[in-house]
Amino acid sequence: MPDTLTRDEIDETSRLISSTKVEGTAVYSRAGDRLGTIQNFMVDKRSGKVEHAVLEFGGFLGLGSDYYPIPWKLLDYDVNQGGYVVDIDKSRLEKAPRYGRDTPPDFSTDYGRQVYSYWDVPYPMM
Amino acid sequence: MPDTLTRDEIDETSRLISSTKVEGTAVYSRAGDRLGTIQNFMVDKRSGKVEHAVLEFGGFLGLGSDYYPIPWKLLDYDVNQGGYVVDIDKSRLEKAPRYGRDTPPDFSTDYGRQVYSYWDVPYPMM
Repeated sequence: MPDTLTRDEIDETSRLISSTKVEGTAVYSRAGDRLGTIQNFMVDKRSGKVEHAVLEFGGFLGLGSDYYPIPWKLLDYDVNQGGYVVDIDKSRLEKAPRYGRDTPPDFSTDYGRQVYSYWDVPYPMM
Repeated sequence: MPDTLTRDEIDETSRLISSTKVEGTAVYSRAGDRLGTIQNFMVDKRSGKVEHAVLEFGGFLGLGSDYYPIPWKLLDYDVNQGGYVVDIDKSRLEKAPRYGRDTPPDFSTDYGRQVYSYWDVPYPMM
């Protein structure tokens, strides 16, 4: 490994990724459908663990689009695609827990458990 | 808790905080000194755990400022200050591990351990 890294390389190493690189990154299904982009992600304040990333999907130029909380674990960055590739197809996403821009849930632990349960991912110990 | 939350409230609940709210947030010492702002933070890809936040400090308008990796655990958000308050004073920060914009480290596990060791925080199991 070289002594210094370029700006792009700071944003991501094999082990770590910068928060600013996650935001705005495109998300694709394994079939190659573009599902949307990661808008932001939510971190448990006490433990520092990411609870979920928020996928923005649907609508047009952000108008009317919905927000889908996705367990962090499902995101798999693909260098060739230049985005995340997830084992999610559109039909499953369409039925997933989501909220509108002005009607977010309370993000309680119960809500988190519902999201993880829908995606068949064990809810992490936070 | 009301059924719906305002946009500001989505960015933070008692339990979770949005990645986009962490970035750009001011950091103060307990004595009230403004130490800088959080530029971004680095997440372990596999575990989804935040390894460190990056505090930008020094310089003028971002010119010549240095980047200080700070263990997530040290950040404590203070609603009254409108920023993070940390048990760090300027003199301790000045001797802390840091890097320049164009000379980042390799962010290896060894580097992470050095950072945590300087700040007397046990290195987390990632």
